[in-house]
Amino acid sequence: MGSVWIDACNTMGQEDSFMFMHSKRLQYTVRVSETNPGLANLMLEQFGGPQGELAAAMRYFTQAIAEDDPGRKDMLLDIATEELSHLEVIGTIVAMLNKGARGKLAEAADEQAEMYRTITGAGNDSHVTQVLYGGGPPLINSAGVPWTAAYVDTIGEPTADLRSNIAAEARAKIVYERLIALTMDPGVRDALGFLMTREVAHQKSFEKALYAIEPNFPPGKLPGDPRFSDKYFDMSQGEGNASGPWNKGAQWEIVSKRADQEAVDGGDGQASTQLTPEEKAAVLAMAARSKSATNGDPITGADLGAGPGAGKTTPLRGRD
Amino acid sequence: MGSVWIDACNTMGQEDSFMFMHSKRLQYTVRVSETNPGLANLMLEQFGGPQGELAAAMRYFTQAIAEDDPGRKDMLLDIATEELSHLEVIGTIVAMLNKGARGKLAEAADEQAEMYRTITGAGNDSHVTQVLYGGGPPLINSAGVPWTAAYVDTIGEPTADLRSNIAAEARAKIVYERLIALTMDPGVRDALGFLMTREVAHQKSFEKALYAIEPNFPPGKLPGDPRFSDKYFDMSQGEGNASGPWNKGAQWEIVSKRADQEAVDGGDGQASTQLTPEEKAAVLAMAARSKSATNGDPITGADLGAGPGAGKTTPLRGRD
Amino acid sequence: MGSVWIDACNTMGQEDSFMFMHSKRLQYTVRVSETNPGLANLMLEQFGGPQGELAAAMRYFTQAIAEDDPGRKDMLLDIATEELSHLEVIGTIVAMLNKGARGKLAEAADEQAEMYRTITGAGNDSHVTQVLYGGGPPLINSAGVPWTAAYVDTIGEPTADLRSNIAAEARAKIVYERLIALTMDPGVRDALGFLMTREVAHQKSFEKALYAIEPNFPPGKLPGDPRFSDKYFDMSQGEGNASGPWNKGAQWEIVSKRADQEAVDGGDGQASTQLTPEEKAAVLAMAARSKSATNGDPITGADLGAGPGAGKTTPLRGRD
Amino acid sequence: MGSVWIDACNTMGQEDSFMFMHSKRLQYTVRVSETNPGLANLMLEQFGGPQGELAAAMRYFTQAIAEDDPGRKDMLLDIATEELSHLEVIGTIVAMLNKGARGKLAEAADEQAEMYRTITGAGNDSHVTQVLYGGGPPLINSAGVPWTAAYVDTIGEPTADLRSNIAAEARAKIVYERLIALTMDPGVRDALGFLMTREVAHQKSFEKALYAIEPNFPPGKLPGDPRFSDKYFDMSQGEGNASGPWNKGAQWEIVSKRADQEAVDGGDGQASTQLTPEEKAAVLAMAARSKSATNGDPITGADLGAGPGAGKTTPLRGRD
Amino acid sequence: MGSVWIDACNTMGQEDSFMFMHSKRLQYTVRVSETNPGLANLMLEQFGGPQGELAAAMRYFTQAIAEDDPGRKDMLLDIATEELSHLEVIGTIVAMLNKGARGKLAEAADEQAEMYRTITGAGNDSHVTQVLYGGGPPLINSAGVPWTAAYVDTIGEPTADLRSNIAAEARAKIVYERLIALTMDPGVRDALGFLMTREVAHQKSFEKALYAIEPNFPPGKLPGDPRFSDKYFDMSQGEGNASGPWNKGAQWEIVSKRADQEAVDGGDGQASTQLTPEEKAAVLAMAARSKSATNGDPITGADLGAGPGAGKTTPLRGRD
Amino acid sequence: MGSVWIDACNTMGQEDSFMFMHSKRLQYTVRVSETNPGLANLMLEQFGGPQGELAAAMRYFTQAIAEDDPGRKDMLLDIATEELSHLEVIGTIVAMLNKGARGKLAEAADEQAEMYRTITGAGNDSHVTQVLYGGGPPLINSAGVPWTAAYVDTIGEPTADLRSNIAAEARAKIVYERLIALTMDPGVRDALGFLMTREVAHQKSFEKALYAIEPNFPPGKLPGDPRFSDKYFDMSQGEGNASGPWNKGAQWEIVSKRADQEAVDGGDGQASTQLTPEEKAAVLAMAARSKSATNGDPITGADLGAGPGAGKTTPLRGRD
Repeated sequence: MGSVWIDACNTMGQEDSFMFMHSKRLQYTVRVSETNPGLANLMLEQFGGPQGELAAAMRYFTQAIAEDDPGRKDMLLDIATEELSHLEVIGTIVAMLNKGARGKLAEAADEQAEMYRTITGAGNDSHVTQVLYGGGPPLINSAGVPWTAAYVDTIGEPTADLRSNIAAEARAKIVYERLIALTMDPGVRDALGFLMTREVAHQKSFEKALYAIEPNFPPGKLPGDPRFSDKYFDMSQGEGNASGPWNKGAQWEIVSKRADQEAVDGGDGQASTQLTPEEKAAVLAMAARSKSATNGDPITGADLGAGPGAGKTTPLRGRD
Repeated sequence: MGSVWIDACNTMGQEDSFMFMHSKRLQYTVRVSETNPGLANLMLEQFGGPQGELAAAMRYFTQAIAEDDPGRKDMLLDIATEELSHLEVIGTIVAMLNKGARGKLAEAADEQAEMYRTITGAGNDSHVTQVLYGGGPPLINSAGVPWTAAYVDTIGEPTADLRSNIAAEARAKIVYERLIALTMDPGVRDALGFLMTREVAHQKSFEKALYAIEPNFPPGKLPGDPRFSDKYFDMSQGEGNASGPWNKGAQWEIVSKRADQEAVDGGDGQASTQLTPEEKAAVLAMAARSKSATNGDPITGADLGAGPGAGKTTPLRGRD
Repeated sequence: MGSVWIDACNTMGQEDSFMFMHSKRLQYTVRVSETNPGLANLMLEQFGGPQGELAAAMRYFTQAIAEDDPGRKDMLLDIATEELSHLEVIGTIVAMLNKGARGKLAEAADEQAEMYRTITGAGNDSHVTQVLYGGGPPLINSAGVPWTAAYVDTIGEPTADLRSNIAAEARAKIVYERLIALTMDPGVRDALGFLMTREVAHQKSFEKALYAIEPNFPPGKLPGDPRFSDKYFDMSQGEGNASGPWNKGAQWEIVSKRADQEAVDGGDGQASTQLTPEEKAAVLAMAARSKSATNGDPITGADLGAGPGAGKTTPLRGRD
Repeated sequence: MGSVWIDACNTMGQEDSFMFMHSKRLQYTVRVSETNPGLANLMLEQFGGPQGELAAAMRYFTQAIAEDDPGRKDMLLDIATEELSHLEVIGTIVAMLNKGARGKLAEAADEQAEMYRTITGAGNDSHVTQVLYGGGPPLINSAGVPWTAAYVDTIGEPTADLRSNIAAEARAKIVYERLIALTMDPGVRDALGFLMTREVAHQKSFEKALYAIEPNFPPGKLPGDPRFSDKYFDMSQGEGNASGPWNKGAQWEIVSKRADQEAVDGGDGQASTQLTPEEKAAVLAMAARSKSATNGDPITGADLGAGPGAGKTTPLRGRD
Repeated sequence: MGSVWIDACNTMGQEDSFMFMHSKRLQYTVRVSETNPGLANLMLEQFGGPQGELAAAMRYFTQAIAEDDPGRKDMLLDIATEELSHLEVIGTIVAMLNKGARGKLAEAADEQAEMYRTITGAGNDSHVTQVLYGGGPPLINSAGVPWTAAYVDTIGEPTADLRSNIAAEARAKIVYERLIALTMDPGVRDALGFLMTREVAHQKSFEKALYAIEPNFPPGKLPGDPRFSDKYFDMSQGEGNASGPWNKGAQWEIVSKRADQEAVDGGDGQASTQLTPEEKAAVLAMAARSKSATNGDPITGADLGAGPGAGKTTPLRGRD
Repeated sequence: MGSVWIDACNTMGQEDSFMFMHSKRLQYTVRVSETNPGLANLMLEQFGGPQGELAAAMRYFTQAIAEDDPGRKDMLLDIATEELSHLEVIGTIVAMLNKGARGKLAEAADEQAEMYRTITGAGNDSHVTQVLYGGGPPLINSAGVPWTAAYVDTIGEPTADLRSNIAAEARAKIVYERLIALTMDPGVRDALGFLMTREVAHQKSFEKALYAIEPNFPPGKLPGDPRFSDKYFDMSQGEGNASGPWNKGAQWEIVSKRADQEAVDGGDGQASTQLTPEEKAAVLAMAARSKSATNGDPITGADLGAGPGAGKTTPLRGRD
């Protein structure tokens, strides 16, 4: 039936095989100074948050599985695996910061008023980790929102996915930077510094991999339409209008006149379709049934509800 | 009390003001050939999908509001506004492709078996648009998943956000390219070509804006730790190991030995924390209570449930 | 300590008590003609969809618990309980339509190719019910999206909640109407007709309950500001501008001039805040660090990636 | 092939065209007194929350695109556009309230313990805006939950959608009223008062538009079944039973007897379906395989796990 | 300050360290017969679905991080790591089944009508994988719903978590069984058989680990209240009432009388609270403002909307 | 046409019928001591949280509808109905704890600064209940995350679903135990103790029902493959390796050698598929287009962005 069995070349239908293993030693030593559930909660951003390590690992892992190019596939597996190890490091930091609190709640070690004060006093949603997750590291962000694969923006085209990876590493680097600015514990700061730095290194790798594809812009296969690819539509106008390399220079033509921003194809800017006679009849019937009378001033539910002497004419002055 | 009223300079606390208006003419003329709910459903990817126009508009709009740099703020408003106009174009395409089917369902124009065949025969989830949304353009993707702000990766740092924008435009360009490959209707193809091209133009603007910040790498304020910023950890090994610019060359040091990938700080790769005596007592009590007996072979629920002569020794051969 | 024990009057701190019971007889007899997983899948809209019976039951139930007014509380409990019974009716319809298919998959009664054809041929996501949920009625809509409490718009103010209830009943009525238009099975049509009619009856009850509060408009306690409560801003202009009772008549003043739509408070339409000296210093430092150079034309990643002779000047003509 | 090209009449297949533009001036002047991230976080309810401005704008915008009636379409576009401008006003308030804190975190302007105290001390999830979103206005509610299109209840039928709009405006009005009760900053109170008032005005417009359709009740096309449309089922009984206009009067017949609430169609209240012989055989096989033995008292996992002298007979007295 | 530095014993504050590595060989050889995007889509249930491998890996991994018992911790890491390797196997199956289709869409290898037929004809949501994800394995289920950590039910108490793991393995086993019943491709069947079997093995391990804790029932620390722990409330009554080991026998007391099911504490079944005088005043004011008039029959919006001679008295007969 | 009408036997196609009713008396008397929104917020875990009463009720209710076995069906309906009554009890506790605060916000009873302090000072997200939900009991967890049917793990196979139910009851018991440890209010503690105990009783019922099916392990119909059902793969190695009943004893064979963990089928551990010539051509074209050049060291965007003398060589020392 015309199909051929492919097993000799991985661009032809064969994937490099792969499997995970685990060794009992962290990639980075974690030394926490004291129980601090509030700080643990902030750390969750990089465990189960949108810019965190699970999102990173899954972004690269799903790309790796579908990738045929041997070099990129290997790189994606290397980095995905490292991100899983980072997920362990940040998760372990969370667990260590919660360790004492976890034991006390599980054993109900204090009387209730004290437990309540501890749970609610740490601030910033750490109560969720304690009450719902028992002090373990849950896959939520610091607001308690469960991780979702909606964070993963892989689309299966290398020249787009590598740009997504570059941007993701930049975002993750910044969130680590913010966490470092909030942390006094020297062991936590040290580990966060390592994790932040690795995002820089990964960004560099993805940049190299992007520019190892030539050309890589525009991404994909279809060229842009030259009538529209160099125009800049000045849609927001008034005081504050500005220019810069993004709309000025040899590559750009600015379109500022409102009339030139509409119906740029030269048509009438209208939308139309063709209907079969049956469809037309149904559309007409629907229109007739829900026709809006534009004359008259019908009494409405709000008119009924406003009552006699309703407050509509009293000025709002807030609470005096 | 030491605070100063700021109103002269927008980097000091004043934002450029802004407001939306609307004019009744599309940015691009839409001419649809015939009712096609199945195609309409695919188009929803760019209306309410993760790479679609609402995600784009909201990504740039939320950045614009918090942005202080006058040039970038203006650019973000220009492009956010254009993306809203694109949201209208793609939404109008969806509405036109559904127009005939919408009327027929609202008026129950055919007998039920025919209506059922039409609704389910168009394939690919178009039944959701018909039954739940009445043929209008809902903010869902082509699988029926509601749009979520989890798609918006704005984090409030220009050197990261501009990279996110570059990547987002690349992804949107590719999805349009795929839709074009699936569409025969010439008017739809024409409008999709325009929308795809504008993503290319926007990517160029965001690139220019990124490189108008110097330096822009690494993003943010903190430098990376030089002990770790140039290392490449070869985490995935075995046949298929590859090298390329992402791990080879003057900028890189490859770490392949497993022992050198663990505890890279030179510590013991262990995790530790300090506990107060009370915390320690609680942790010990919890450990004692849930201690696992590692000797013996307890009868389990599965042992009970397997029954006498359970099928555990019968080979799985599927259905013969 | 000044607090008083309240137990005599339910507006004072006592709730009417309540508890659910169950009796083994449906509110409406369900007679299904034949196995039809595709139709079952469409029915899920009213089981686990946004306009379905669980959303209705939970909307009224959560209102009932917090409601103090004895009449409204009783009504909300009556209708919430009836909606739970409707949830059973629609769920039973789903289960009956899936019954045969469920047995066949569980027992792998056909050979695989036939099973695959059956599962994928029914269309419209019924495969999800079969493969993931085993033919039972899952709390998803017809696209497979899990039910979420984000569908419940209760906010705890009767003059708003009753309006939400009225609207919810109107929406549910319409979705039933659409399902009736798609169903030939006489027993299913009969039961759907009952369920649809009850939404009409419930809407009437909620309307009566809303107008039993006087005044009920505007909802809540604060009056509107009379400078703005009767104005209609004509934000969308151009060909197609229209008028009707919603912007014309004694109650309305139309504002069409663009300049009168901006800064309607008479101020400058600018935004400002006060910063402490420390905050000001930090804001300035951040601005300097991320300053955008508006002159020059920096080489960008896209410039690098476009390569020599990139396709930017080739017109898009689709696939020839 | 019998189809006709439609371009003369917008009920026949042509949409009014439309496009967004932007002008750099807010609809309402925003003057914030001081940095207050905790207050900013509460304001997010009306930016990215279920009753907020994005939900409003998207509700009306998606209705407008599919609407054929010229008057309603224009009104929906007018109000959708105004809601987008409100989204800018409330977003700008958020940005202004966060401005000082944003700068300090980005520049790590304080030492860590002070930064940590500031971030966690403001309460109510403002840490999410700072750490994850860098002080910009994210599309989340005040709990950190991302905005979802599940909030948008548009279903494509005007007599239902207009009721949804009326209810949505009522809810938004109330949430603004609550925020005003929590805000001392006079500039913020002033702007909130404007936004709250506009919800009142929009509710009035939607009421007028609903009653400009005659008849508009019951919504849609199918009438209710007169056997069931005027009955009130008294499902919740016992002390506290009440009556009012919602179940008493000429329009109503109350059904209180339990037997009359079941199987109201006069059937046996049973559910049934027809199975093919093959389906029947599979269902029987499945039943036999998972048959429950109703006699005997099998040892269970819990019996095993309770151990000798398990605590089942010790009274629960909490912590003594 | 009373705290002690803990580093000698892992129940005292030290975690076993751990890190992931990767080797380029699958745990199980995957040999796919031909491109089949429809089958690939069904396989996604075990990649990104609720019962799939990512959910399993993350369930055990998050438990492992917080676990102090050395034996359980090691077991959880072993099985979590194996589940990641299974995630690779199932993901690779998806990629292989999509490989040909992926190439054709990326290269637009067929003309549009043919591409459209291929994309929509495979049925069951495979269009989402193609159009949005480019044929790679996305973290969605077979309906296109993104994976969410809401699927992970870890709560940080071993006697509960191990039961969750047992149940999860049972569910995963069943979904694999269903997929096997739908697959003719012998290589895919073979790999699915392996994955299914491993769920059986994992269930056995978790059962053994649960019963290695003595006692393990009831889970946690607090005993049940003996007044209520052996009662069975017969809440659903009428024809079909049944008994079995779950409510009959020495361990049980059945409570069938309705009156004995209410207020089982012997109180009045009422709810009450204490309010301060200020709270009482506010509650009274709120009650007065939203008081429902229980007499009279107010004209409502529905009354207005029903119009003269509205359809309320016309019987519903569906489409004749 | 070969189908038979089934109405005599409920394993043959007939369901027991069922309907809900309501009686105005709580299952357990609720006596709250004082307004406490912070405590109310924690209680939401068992109202709208993943381990709460709605999840329980819906888990058993959806199983009941599809269940054919008369005994299990009755049990599932009994317990589902009781869980609905528990939902009322816990919801009523929430409403009572919020009652005073609700009135004060609705009436704006205090001046704004005091209201703001009250709302934000209660801690732990209680502001969401107040501002968004008006003090009623919303279907969210204590972090504000809306309830989702993704929490319901019913899959339609009794031997799996009963295990899911057992685990769910164990989890719910633990969360109640934690809440009891945090609550001083004696009336709340008393009611929580009742609810916690009922989870114990329900777990016992589900255990009995599971073991009333013989055999019940492995769940489902297919046996495991004996080559793989008794093996334990020691995937995580190094210091800390442990053994116990889960991998030691007559039932187990431990596989520790890395080479024996890969390609356990005895194949080459590779993945392959067959492509048609057309597919092969497209795959090759795609590979060529996105080929990665593995030699050379291309200039990247990051190289451009690093600027002259970029900070890459400055050690990270945090804030000095």
